[in-house]
Amino acid sequence: MNIIYIPERSAWNDLLKRPTKDAKDLNNLVAGVLADVRAHGDEAVLRYEAQFDHVELSSLRVDDAEFAEAETLVPAELKEALQLAHDNIYKFHAAQRFQGEPCEVVQGVTCWQKSVAIEKVGLYIPGGTAPLFSTVLMLAVPAKIAGCKEIVLCTPPQRDGKVHPAVLVAARLSGVTNVFKAGGVQAIGAMAYGTESVPKVYKIFGPGNQFVMCAKQQVSLHDAAIDMPAGPSEVMVLADASANASFVAADLLSQAEHGVDSQALLLTTSADLACRVAEELERQLPLLPRNEIAREALKHSKLIVLRDEAEMMDMANAYAPEHLIIETADYMDLAARVVNAGSVFLGNLTPESAGDYASGTNHTLPTNGYATAYNGVNLDSYMRKVTFQHITSEGVKKIGPAVELMAAGENLDAHRMAMKLRREAVEAGKV
Amino acid sequence: MNIIYIPERSAWNDLLKRPTKDAKDLNNLVAGVLADVRAHGDEAVLRYEAQFDHVELSSLRVDDAEFAEAETLVPAELKEALQLAHDNIYKFHAAQRFQGEPCEVVQGVTCWQKSVAIEKVGLYIPGGTAPLFSTVLMLAVPAKIAGCKEIVLCTPPQRDGKVHPAVLVAARLSGVTNVFKAGGVQAIGAMAYGTESVPKVYKIFGPGNQFVMCAKQQVSLHDAAIDMPAGPSEVMVLADASANASFVAADLLSQAEHGVDSQALLLTTSADLACRVAEELERQLPLLPRNEIAREALKHSKLIVLRDEAEMMDMANAYAPEHLIIETADYMDLAARVVNAGSVFLGNLTPESAGDYASGTNHTLPTNGYATAYNGVNLDSYMRKVTFQHITSEGVKKIGPAVELMAAGENLDAHRMAMKLRREAVEAGKV
Repeated sequence: MNIIYIPERSAWNDLLKRPTKDAKDLNNLVAGVLADVRAHGDEAVLRYEAQFDHVELSSLRVDDAEFAEAETLVPAELKEALQLAHDNIYKFHAAQRFQGEPCEVVQGVTCWQKSVAIEKVGLYIPGGTAPLFSTVLMLAVPAKIAGCKEIVLCTPPQRDGKVHPAVLVAARLSGVTNVFKAGGVQAIGAMAYGTESVPKVYKIFGPGNQFVMCAKQQVSLHDAAIDMPAGPSEVMVLADASANASFVAADLLSQAEHGVDSQALLLTTSADLACRVAEELERQLPLLPRNEIAREALKHSKLIVLRDEAEMMDMANAYAPEHLIIETADYMDLAARVVNAGSVFLGNLTPESAGDYASGTNHTLPTNGYATAYNGVNLDSYMRKVTFQHITSEGVKKIGPAVELMAAGENLDAHRMAMKLRREAVEAGKV
Repeated sequence: MNIIYIPERSAWNDLLKRPTKDAKDLNNLVAGVLADVRAHGDEAVLRYEAQFDHVELSSLRVDDAEFAEAETLVPAELKEALQLAHDNIYKFHAAQRFQGEPCEVVQGVTCWQKSVAIEKVGLYIPGGTAPLFSTVLMLAVPAKIAGCKEIVLCTPPQRDGKVHPAVLVAARLSGVTNVFKAGGVQAIGAMAYGTESVPKVYKIFGPGNQFVMCAKQQVSLHDAAIDMPAGPSEVMVLADASANASFVAADLLSQAEHGVDSQALLLTTSADLACRVAEELERQLPLLPRNEIAREALKHSKLIVLRDEAEMMDMANAYAPEHLIIETADYMDLAARVVNAGSVFLGNLTPESAGDYASGTNHTLPTNGYATAYNGVNLDSYMRKVTFQHITSEGVKKIGPAVELMAAGENLDAHRMAMKLRREAVEAGKV
């Protein structure tokens, strides 16, 4: 494990560089699959399921029998854990409900915002090495709270043609029953354009591999909004001498096990802590089932010793980590100085995995530096704030002349007339 | 003007179809200019300014002398109108400030959201047939309220190499002085990548022609977020027999004058009103300086007579208009049923032009049906909601077991360990 000791500021850019991938080769491949799904609907999706997921499906939709079977296959204690996580996610996201208050801007001019649910949303749950039932809760619970009328969930089937039972249990627990067996680019296409089976949606949420991300970006140009761009997952830990080296190492490893391109960075004011964390990493690593992945990821991870907390915060804000864990004595002071991060975990007893599963916050977060401009999924992500305004005759008198002058100044005479006709009618006592 | 009398629902899709453009030819052209700006910075921007805007500039930045001169060129009464508009926009957007409250999800697990300004934003103000100083206010005022540290504004210079003075007065009034003479694709590239003169930003706002929109979408794939996709502007008016035909016609015309591809639609329950509006359109049209543009736009506009208010609302929600004006006796009832719209104008005395300029709402809104998934620019557009969480030893006991079970269920053992180490330390009384 690399320990880097008080780097010069001029070296920060290189130190914080993320691994990049060239997506150019992907673009044509993805565009081809999307066009095929758009043109041929279910037939194309079924064909790609056979080709990419190696299953011959007779239909895409998960039926009641499969949901019922799933309930019998998931252990009771996991169901209870899902229920607890569900309830916490529900509580924190329900607290995000927005109630717009009317604002009388000037006498007779009242404006307000109203938060309205997006009618149709699509949730993508990847398959791959692990069944991501936690992501089902993270995406479906706020959609239900928002009041989205149509919630569609796509996930690739296992080799036996079935969806992992814990995914179905989490979906039903969240109130989502429109579940389809489709993965990858074909799933994104199905939700963006609609097929005979899969309803078209207005916005698509969820993580995925580089093919899925490329497909989401392509459909976002015209056909459906997306939650955010994405890249490999990442964590940055800020720690001082008071931190517990064993906890810090476990936090770095829980990022590193995600994939070989995951990034785990430690910034610390204590060279001693950096050494102890390096030792702990070596101790804990062999104990992990996914230690080969984690060891590979650690090769481009770094333990960086810095002069003081100010430098730590500057570097954290420059990196804009998806997950930021602050394990220092004065974590609340540092929390107040966070500018760029997706989600922040405070103190020695708040591991990222708490927020990944069950504390109530969302785990769908901006990676790859996108935290500079995006936030993670929250209740707002499923809604739009529509503005309303109402003007009385008094209001027309107050702002009418300014509107007319500005419209004239922009050479938009019909805009001017729309106000002038009303103002004159008001002044003549006709309305 | 087309009057369509009680169409069948099966005909709605065709009736509501928007004019579409194929952007494929644009993509390569735009990508070329963007790559050039990324590689050659200011030199490329200056070269494209000469080529596309026909001005030889010695530098991109607007200097103090040009700002000072602009103040002398804008008439006092327009300045007063700008001030009034500024103050109203400020008041309505400042009322949108968000204060996250801590939520104790379960005992010992506290989560909250904090709204943090995007540090660096770019505002694009088009040139073209009209100086859009109103858009300067709409984009810059919420950026200042949010507290964005670096606000960059790009706008194409006039043929004389200067920026329209009202644009500079509006910028200074809003507190923006980082103004650069750059238009079109080269401006978007300069802000997305940064050049020697133009700072790189994290998010780009503002309207533009199809080249600008294509450039915004291309940079949004990797380099900078954007406010929203866009298309031609549009208005839908809902009116009953109580509406004023002259006002309704003026509202339709104030959309039609924007451009030949603008859409203006009237839905009404009164065939008589439709006829009177058609007459008013013919009467008002010749009086407009931009009547040729408006006449062209009206060719694909429609006056649609429907059975009842329920049908009007259904069709409005199916169309998802950028601007929705409700001129009926019971406009508040209809307002409550709006699902898909950008901004809604209520009653006979609330023209779209009020919101375009000075009522306080934002005029940067989703067109082209994007109101199904996007809202207009608001204070949130300049901020991110970062989530924070803090867990005590009590909290670790409450949610620890569920986190460990779920992590194990997803085969993420390091995630499990990060919680298990803490829970065991808590149970052993060590922390």
